[in-house]
Amino acid sequence: MRLEQSHRTERFGAVRIHELQRVIQLDSGDARGAVDDGVVSHDAIRAIEREMVIVIPCMNETRRVIEGVLSGIPQDCLIVLVSNSSRHPVDRYEIEAQTVEQFCRLADRPAVTVHQRDPGLAAAFKSAGMPELIGDDGLVRSGKGEAMLVGMAVAALTGRRYLGYIDADNYVPGAVHEYVKVYAAGLHLADNPYAMVRISWHSKPKLRDGRLFFSRRGRSSEITNGFLNRLIAEYSGFGTEVIATGNAGEHALSLDLGLRLRLAGGFAVEPFEYVDLFEQFGGVLDTAAQPEVMASSVPVLQIETRNPHFHDNKGEEHVQGMRLQALNVLYHSPVTLPAVRAAIVEFMVAQGALAPGAEPPRERIYPPVGSLELDLLRDQLDTEAETLCKIGGHSTVEGSRVWTRRA
Amino acid sequence: MRLEQSHRTERFGAVRIHELQRVIQLDSGDARGAVDDGVVSHDAIRAIEREMVIVIPCMNETRRVIEGVLSGIPQDCLIVLVSNSSRHPVDRYEIEAQTVEQFCRLADRPAVTVHQRDPGLAAAFKSAGMPELIGDDGLVRSGKGEAMLVGMAVAALTGRRYLGYIDADNYVPGAVHEYVKVYAAGLHLADNPYAMVRISWHSKPKLRDGRLFFSRRGRSSEITNGFLNRLIAEYSGFGTEVIATGNAGEHALSLDLGLRLRLAGGFAVEPFEYVDLFEQFGGVLDTAAQPEVMASSVPVLQIETRNPHFHDNKGEEHVQGMRLQALNVLYHSPVTLPAVRAAIVEFMVAQGALAPGAEPPRERIYPPVGSLELDLLRDQLDTEAETLCKIGGHSTVEGSRVWTRRA
Repeated sequence: MRLEQSHRTERFGAVRIHELQRVIQLDSGDARGAVDDGVVSHDAIRAIEREMVIVIPCMNETRRVIEGVLSGIPQDCLIVLVSNSSRHPVDRYEIEAQTVEQFCRLADRPAVTVHQRDPGLAAAFKSAGMPELIGDDGLVRSGKGEAMLVGMAVAALTGRRYLGYIDADNYVPGAVHEYVKVYAAGLHLADNPYAMVRISWHSKPKLRDGRLFFSRRGRSSEITNGFLNRLIAEYSGFGTEVIATGNAGEHALSLDLGLRLRLAGGFAVEPFEYVDLFEQFGGVLDTAAQPEVMASSVPVLQIETRNPHFHDNKGEEHVQGMRLQALNVLYHSPVTLPAVRAAIVEFMVAQGALAPGAEPPRERIYPPVGSLELDLLRDQLDTEAETLCKIGGHSTVEGSRVWTRRA
Repeated sequence: MRLEQSHRTERFGAVRIHELQRVIQLDSGDARGAVDDGVVSHDAIRAIEREMVIVIPCMNETRRVIEGVLSGIPQDCLIVLVSNSSRHPVDRYEIEAQTVEQFCRLADRPAVTVHQRDPGLAAAFKSAGMPELIGDDGLVRSGKGEAMLVGMAVAALTGRRYLGYIDADNYVPGAVHEYVKVYAAGLHLADNPYAMVRISWHSKPKLRDGRLFFSRRGRSSEITNGFLNRLIAEYSGFGTEVIATGNAGEHALSLDLGLRLRLAGGFAVEPFEYVDLFEQFGGVLDTAAQPEVMASSVPVLQIETRNPHFHDNKGEEHVQGMRLQALNVLYHSPVTLPAVRAAIVEFMVAQGALAPGAEPPRERIYPPVGSLELDLLRDQLDTEAETLCKIGGHSTVEGSRVWTRRA
């Protein structure tokens, strides 16, 4: 893979946000570039992929779409599907798990699937030290952030070093393939134990007046990115447009970083990753100093893919929900300065999303996955979580390639 | 890459048509399967790519779409763009050549571009022994088949062994990438000096009643495939559906085979490849016996890709034109038995595309590219073809990586 070179970064304490870089070429063959020319060799990519878990949060996608997504994930990555699909009247999770199992049999590779609303999963997280994740019904809360948290905990159990998220609602297997290659190339180039790679898709095909139109930016992203950039600019005194990936569903990170991050619930999860990076590693709050991370710095690479992002249209309500949840976490963060908070409220009121004089609601923020007792979680999952499937690939003993050996 | 195994083939003389195989997984890592399990290793694919020319016939596509297509072609393949774009009032070819040049500079790779209607190109083909290609205006005829023929001749000059075609109107770089990987995997699996790989796309997104619908088969393809299968069934006495790629724009072949094939003009080119295989290697005509090919057999692999084929809608007229040109060549082939010819005429009359009692028109059929005097063609192109750009990549002497050394 060949990426555009990135020369400019914006610093926020230990966080170094790289300007958006484009993918120049999907496959740069066996070329091995000089240092810093943006070429990442096949071998370097493969080395990261062998250490990478791909978590797919999934809700009510068709068998065919899931199969396409799976087909795009390079062989060496471990697939983890976290489903919140309906189980009645048709058990869609059963169909999903079968789809994954069948694919893995054909492709001879391992995978893990689990249902987010499995009572055994909730029990395991409760025992392992995260009762916050459990709702009034005694189950893990519904929500994308919660699915991602479950996926991260499962990834931590595998002993692999990197984690990438891929949304299940993607019609283009080649785009999925590119996302994973971008994760690997970015994590290689970041060359840092605490690194994150966030994707900005090239374009999004939309229907407009009966024809296709390739839109460059999402409706929700523009607003989230705008306020995140203002948050930074309030500190630096210089306007910036560096953040282009505030709502990036597609992103990857080292687990060394991931296990330290607090994830937010629902659709607040993706923008809150930026906010938590600023809170924990921005150097402006007294809390949570992590000297080893502060000394190392935290690079965030933002990469624009070549493929269009082609998925189902979830409708205006979904977009509005995403936007508001992003603004809620921004508003309530202690790193957000008063001027930005005021601008957020003004915007929300103007949109009719907030009554004048009211305060934006708080979103749920969970403790870091690294605070879980992972040995306990593993044991509880194995014994309690009935929906947990560990698929081994046909040439290995069932499941043996999935969990890491215990220390 | 991992392909479904293909067990069934249909024989027509030396031609062995393999049943459609699906791509199971785009990237099978470093897996090296056992013989015949459909896994093609990275190294095997790379070995073919290094010997492959990708010819892109192009007509009036936007800069952005062309750039996307280029970004999907693996580094080791040599890019040849044959343009029939308009040159007035805006010189679109100049923009295309600049796009290719700029991409190749960034990606450090070579390419060739040429305009189909360059008088110097026509002069070169005339001198080299193919006056049939020249129209009344003294230029190479317009038409897709003619662009593909020019591309094949250029490919022959490079000394590479394989040729793949990629249409320029593709919105999904990841699909282009998959096509080339499929070509390489298929040519590797065919393991034969005279081999062809033809692509059947997974689905084609279409607008229907204001929403997207993933259609499995093209309108034109169903008819072309139906009559090609009937052609075979008339000989074998058994109905068959083996041919699924009669109109495949995306296909690849060894140049050892390509230089022996006669190409048809316009949109007849793709279905006529099947017809010419049957005529030359089907063993039912006395003409053109080629003992070395007949002894070796000619495998045709048909592979269904994972990505949707997502391109501009060229309209009903275009589809109707393609369909009729395919039927014209089928009708006039000496391998087509009377019952099939009668069925073709009946269909065309029922469609209102042929007056009752009339005969379908003939399409142009050109002599094999292998009959050209290639040394003469090379010299003439270098001296006469003003639009010919040989782009060398920034790390090499201009053009040196493009033409092969003369014998």
